[in-house]
Amino acid sequence: MREALVAAAFELFLERGFEQTTIDDIVSLAGVGRRSFFRYFPAKEDVVFPDHERGLAEMTEFLESGSGEEDPVRHACDAARLVLRMYAEQPSFSVQRYRLTRKVPGLRAYELSVVWRYEHTLAHYLRGRFAGRPDGPLRADVVAAAVVSAHNHALRTWLRSGGESDWVTEVDRAMAFVTDTWGERPAGGDQAADGDGPEEQDDVVVLVASRRAPLWRMVQGIESALGDPRRVHQD
Amino acid sequence: MREALVAAAFELFLERGFEQTTIDDIVSLAGVGRRSFFRYFPAKEDVVFPDHERGLAEMTEFLESGSGEEDPVRHACDAARLVLRMYAEQPSFSVQRYRLTRKVPGLRAYELSVVWRYEHTLAHYLRGRFAGRPDGPLRADVVAAAVVSAHNHALRTWLRSGGESDWVTEVDRAMAFVTDTWGERPAGGDQAADGDGPEEQDDVVVLVASRRAPLWRMVQGIESALGDPRRVHQD
Repeated sequence: MREALVAAAFELFLERGFEQTTIDDIVSLAGVGRRSFFRYFPAKEDVVFPDHERGLAEMTEFLESGSGEEDPVRHACDAARLVLRMYAEQPSFSVQRYRLTRKVPGLRAYELSVVWRYEHTLAHYLRGRFAGRPDGPLRADVVAAAVVSAHNHALRTWLRSGGESDWVTEVDRAMAFVTDTWGERPAGGDQAADGDGPEEQDDVVVLVASRRAPLWRMVQGIESALGDPRRVHQD
Repeated sequence: MREALVAAAFELFLERGFEQTTIDDIVSLAGVGRRSFFRYFPAKEDVVFPDHERGLAEMTEFLESGSGEEDPVRHACDAARLVLRMYAEQPSFSVQRYRLTRKVPGLRAYELSVVWRYEHTLAHYLRGRFAGRPDGPLRADVVAAAVVSAHNHALRTWLRSGGESDWVTEVDRAMAFVTDTWGERPAGGDQAADGDGPEEQDDVVVLVASRRAPLWRMVQGIESALGDPRRVHQD
């Protein structure tokens, strides 16, 4: 029944557009009553993104589960992984929806509002964690946008493969880009454990220091970074 | 006439919602004919974002005007500045629209699609410029999202001030966050010329090097950065 409703809805959205399709049209094509529709979906858009509210709730719960000591950027990336896992759990539905949203402008607009709510949720968490920084709100917004964009990049890559590629590899690579940029520690150690191309990631040392620091402090910093066993390159 | 149409449209969007308002409703409230509407606006959404197509065209033209030698991140930031300037040229209209989009969900959704097109345009340019990098497409998407997010942060700050704050200061600060993160050079020199808080910006040296580079090369890099007159801090 649920699948028949989804199939009917997708057919009509493609044919008439999202806004022009009513719930009556959908139940009529699926050959069921209106009440059956509402047993499965609270509203028309929930046929397309049935797990959106659950995904947001899970993300919020995960974000709030932090001790307050965790690296906020890494924690935000892990929250985004939950969403990608939700898509990956239903590959054929996700791929079908992806093809539909490319073709139906009204659905594309709805998808943007779905994405925006995830971004807003991440930004809210990051604003709390960055509250002590002068650039806190700006940093929170930009990092949240970067996490969402990296997530969407990984998701699209996986969807374009028809759900065939390894989504864990895709999301690891995308999130490593964000944590390498803003995470509290260079991410070499953890990434190697995640199985994500450690050669490429380990190849760079980044030193950030006050430019008024004496030169010996910077050299010490470099030596200490190079000596950190988490980052030693295994040739 | 144009202003009367905008006023009527804004009143109806607020009262009935964006989707529920027709062009007939708007012209009837404004007391003009349909033809007058289309003389000013190609479609209903253009009453709210009349300069969107022009803004996109300007951004695209600016992006394409690069020599191919320019710092791509900085060039993308400068393209985003054009959009903010377009808003800032009409402060009272921009502030009025901002208040409206907060209240009318259909308009908020339309605004997201406007923002998405800017982001898409920036990402397209950056993909071209990052084509030689293994992480090119991912980097392009994330940087484009960061530029748009920083732009929107500056825009919102200015709009919330009722268009009273100094938008140039807001956008300089937001874009400096992005160029400091990914720009080709630390941005101290240029930013000081822009009048953007040089104390904060000049305070950091970032060294990025192959971790297999000999220590003396890194020290040389630091010395050379510290000796760069563009970056010398004036106490």
